[in-house]
Amino acid sequence: MSLDRYVWPGAHQSAACFTIDFDAHVPYLWAHRREMPVRLSHLEQRRFGPRVGIHRLLDLLDRYHLKATIFVPGKTAEDYPEFLPLILAKGHEIGLHGYFHEIVSEISDAAFTDALEASLALFAAQTGTRPKAFRSPAWEMTPHMLAEVRRHGLIDSSLMGYDHPYTIDGVTEIPVQWTIDDAIYFKFLGGGGDLAPPSAPGPILDGWLDEWAGLHRYGGLFMLTVHDWISGHAQRIVMLERLIERISAEPTVWWATVGEIAAHHEATQADRWRVDAALPDPISGHAAFPRT
Amino acid sequence: MSLDRYVWPGAHQSAACFTIDFDAHVPYLWAHRREMPVRLSHLEQRRFGPRVGIHRLLDLLDRYHLKATIFVPGKTAEDYPEFLPLILAKGHEIGLHGYFHEIVSEISDAAFTDALEASLALFAAQTGTRPKAFRSPAWEMTPHMLAEVRRHGLIDSSLMGYDHPYTIDGVTEIPVQWTIDDAIYFKFLGGGGDLAPPSAPGPILDGWLDEWAGLHRYGGLFMLTVHDWISGHAQRIVMLERLIERISAEPTVWWATVGEIAAHHEATQADRWRVDAALPDPISGHAAFPRT
Amino acid sequence: MSLDRYVWPGAHQSAACFTIDFDAHVPYLWAHRREMPVRLSHLEQRRFGPRVGIHRLLDLLDRYHLKATIFVPGKTAEDYPEFLPLILAKGHEIGLHGYFHEIVSEISDAAFTDALEASLALFAAQTGTRPKAFRSPAWEMTPHMLAEVRRHGLIDSSLMGYDHPYTIDGVTEIPVQWTIDDAIYFKFLGGGGDLAPPSAPGPILDGWLDEWAGLHRYGGLFMLTVHDWISGHAQRIVMLERLIERISAEPTVWWATVGEIAAHHEATQADRWRVDAALPDPISGHAAFPRT
Amino acid sequence: MSLDRYVWPGAHQSAACFTIDFDAHVPYLWAHRREMPVRLSHLEQRRFGPRVGIHRLLDLLDRYHLKATIFVPGKTAEDYPEFLPLILAKGHEIGLHGYFHEIVSEISDAAFTDALEASLALFAAQTGTRPKAFRSPAWEMTPHMLAEVRRHGLIDSSLMGYDHPYTIDGVTEIPVQWTIDDAIYFKFLGGGGDLAPPSAPGPILDGWLDEWAGLHRYGGLFMLTVHDWISGHAQRIVMLERLIERISAEPTVWWATVGEIAAHHEATQADRWRVDAALPDPISGHAAFPRT
Repeated sequence: MSLDRYVWPGAHQSAACFTIDFDAHVPYLWAHRREMPVRLSHLEQRRFGPRVGIHRLLDLLDRYHLKATIFVPGKTAEDYPEFLPLILAKGHEIGLHGYFHEIVSEISDAAFTDALEASLALFAAQTGTRPKAFRSPAWEMTPHMLAEVRRHGLIDSSLMGYDHPYTIDGVTEIPVQWTIDDAIYFKFLGGGGDLAPPSAPGPILDGWLDEWAGLHRYGGLFMLTVHDWISGHAQRIVMLERLIERISAEPTVWWATVGEIAAHHEATQADRWRVDAALPDPISGHAAFPRT
Repeated sequence: MSLDRYVWPGAHQSAACFTIDFDAHVPYLWAHRREMPVRLSHLEQRRFGPRVGIHRLLDLLDRYHLKATIFVPGKTAEDYPEFLPLILAKGHEIGLHGYFHEIVSEISDAAFTDALEASLALFAAQTGTRPKAFRSPAWEMTPHMLAEVRRHGLIDSSLMGYDHPYTIDGVTEIPVQWTIDDAIYFKFLGGGGDLAPPSAPGPILDGWLDEWAGLHRYGGLFMLTVHDWISGHAQRIVMLERLIERISAEPTVWWATVGEIAAHHEATQADRWRVDAALPDPISGHAAFPRT
Repeated sequence: MSLDRYVWPGAHQSAACFTIDFDAHVPYLWAHRREMPVRLSHLEQRRFGPRVGIHRLLDLLDRYHLKATIFVPGKTAEDYPEFLPLILAKGHEIGLHGYFHEIVSEISDAAFTDALEASLALFAAQTGTRPKAFRSPAWEMTPHMLAEVRRHGLIDSSLMGYDHPYTIDGVTEIPVQWTIDDAIYFKFLGGGGDLAPPSAPGPILDGWLDEWAGLHRYGGLFMLTVHDWISGHAQRIVMLERLIERISAEPTVWWATVGEIAAHHEATQADRWRVDAALPDPISGHAAFPRT
Repeated sequence: MSLDRYVWPGAHQSAACFTIDFDAHVPYLWAHRREMPVRLSHLEQRRFGPRVGIHRLLDLLDRYHLKATIFVPGKTAEDYPEFLPLILAKGHEIGLHGYFHEIVSEISDAAFTDALEASLALFAAQTGTRPKAFRSPAWEMTPHMLAEVRRHGLIDSSLMGYDHPYTIDGVTEIPVQWTIDDAIYFKFLGGGGDLAPPSAPGPILDGWLDEWAGLHRYGGLFMLTVHDWISGHAQRIVMLERLIERISAEPTVWWATVGEIAAHHEATQADRWRVDAALPDPISGHAAFPRT
């Protein structure tokens, strides 16, 4: 712990990973799972993702010769079956992301297991391969989920306990980070459910570059997450180009996929960064808990 | 789909469209449709639109030799009957925008049809012409609304499924875009109902310019939307001038009205960008839906 | 209307007015008028205003040789009786701002009249003079309030129907403007009741300067409003200095008090900018109101 | 009062103080004190603080040769017993911060006293010393709390009635300030409980530098507060470096701990800046209170 450095392969001083959570319309289906509203605005905004946004992101990756890890809900793959083969053909990795982008707090442990297995089966059917990584919808995890991920031999990429890889309950964790996720700044759908207007992109990009500069110094992992229907918009492609160009100007950054990073971690670092997920006891049983 | 380019007329590489949603006090009347609060603040803020703001916007358009499409709720035209003739005299287009800026989720299908027909009748009476385009209040649509818009031979400009024109359920869609709408950043009325303070204009303008630069590269449509009582304020006229000057410096941008863009689309591109609005089934009937 | 210019005295092209709403702890007293919470944080934050903030603002005005109009709730004057004489001695104007910063929607018409008269009596007792102007707490007005303001021969400075002086229901209105008020961006008290974190000052200052530049061109009134306990903080004094220095570099700006501006308006412009406050009828009685 | 200057030791014109509220997972334990959710995301985000963030902050302080005051909830010290000795060994001060980061409005006066005494006992047991300062969780105080803080001979650092030291109810107050606290801008946990997305760091840093510049001119105290799990992230270390470098370039700034500042205050300034915390009476008993 403390300022111990995470060690990266060869002369690399830090790592950077480009991930896409390819949600498309699926979170909308989950939110309205019992009854579909007779409205088109949100659906059309999200359908922009598979129609346009994902193609712009894949093209961006091609232009910069980057390989990404793309987390795909089962339902996205089911409704748009052309994408898993296309993503693999371009040399990217695919990862699991729930079946219906189920929100953890709204489903049982058994339902999580069912969704994980249904999405594994679908991915196998569509691609003949098995994804190596899982990322939780909305980035929440439970001890049960970690156990299931471990049972299926998967990598996890959902938690934030370090800003470099670690091992939690025996699972390799390639951590995410809110501050370099597009959705918290830019997701905006209208209709009354939004937290705030979209952030202006310039100052957010500056913050992302600061995060990268700091992580590069500390030997961390710059884990970028974008979404098809959000960052496929033109102004965000422009923003991502500026980001990639700056990072790629630094030769000691290791651009790698989740699977490549996990393989490195498991081969060389897993024992140094190992934690338990143990839930703490409620403090109401503590001797110092207020009696009045 | 994918990175297929939308084709614009002649040597134009992309298009830009200036639209005004001339709401004035009408959304306030709708929000308080059963009983009028005995308060003046919001009313006066909105009356600034027809008193001052719309004139500044029309003057701005004159100075830059731009023709706009101005969507006008029936009640705005009824209470300020001088504007539809003035707008047409200046060479702009008018479009429909509900009668009372009715919110889609608060009215029946029949009420939508009634409002559409009442506003068509009013516009005909005031101008002797018939508008070609419709934009939904709050940019929500339903399959019924699309069918009615089609039945009346209108263009729609309310959805966001592409960032260039497309055809949905047989209706020509000249799409809007939240990120280049003034209201989501700048609408602020006080009294407790606001989402956040108004955004600072500088970083938002930078984001609009990034959106334009990206759309220009991809061959998209830069669909700007402003409101009389919001962007008629002095600081936003300044912001719009900076925006227009930058875009107009690029000779391969086609500044066009909604009607002109739709005519181009229908003549040359409609078959390439055709989708159905079909509402998906609720996933609760899906084989993989969680049983527990 | 339209782009008719408001005419300012002499060679002045536009006007600028510096106002302080000297609220101190009074809105807190109103919010907790039945029972005082046993907590100190908000009280101490607001007491910073009369202890420190107002002095920094008065010093700022001295340094730039500006005369301000300072709106003071009766209870501020009652609890800090040294300020009204001090403000007048420095050559500033005082204005009324409710007795307890009563929120319009929470009191009856009669209670408004009582508060207005109680604050007039208190100001007369403390200063031997009678203020000329009224500004409503939270900038809300009703037809009754306008009538009472007119009956007492006062100027109003609470509404936003133009961005230059006008006359409403026979009352001279020296209008305010949300976008150049400090509270909507910077008010932050903690404890769970805040809308958002305070805005960063740099981009807001840029927006204020844009507003000023635009208003100067159009011949408007730049009506700045700040609060003792908000803009008395050091970073906002710095911001206000930058603002004043830019505006004062332009010799054709008329820096004037609310009273001076009203006197000019009444002498030369009142007939050109006259409106009624008439509340509209609810649209539920309209022929086009949705029946279903 | 007014523009009277606070006098600092020697040739110092103003003071700066670096404080850390080392909350780690403790506010989460308090929020869920009766039942622990079976979820890991928030816990892991907060555990980043003691695993990584606090080490980066301590290293930052070492690199710039600064001594900080670090406020530690009892439960943080209990669960991570290595830190109090480490902090003292590095020459920093420790301060009390509740036992479970109890929120003032959710506990009785007796419970506050119990928590204060339990944390004093724990700190004595872990370090053999007694902290000199207290900072309230969430920066709320009551007259009872001030009395208890006084009874135990502690300094308080929780209120904002001045922006330099003062004395309230006989307690030395080394005041905090929301605008230079990291949490209000950058705290973000996901899961639906956040006020807004994290602010972009660049404009916030500019505001912090303006606050410092203004306070330096007025002779105030720049009281910075950061949190282990928030400002331990890489982009915020970068931000803090820029801040410290600018402030430290000014030789007349006195970087000091809360204890050092309090000792100066008590020795030389306490009589000049003395206030009572007296809660005001509810205005419902006031003669001018609205009767209708």
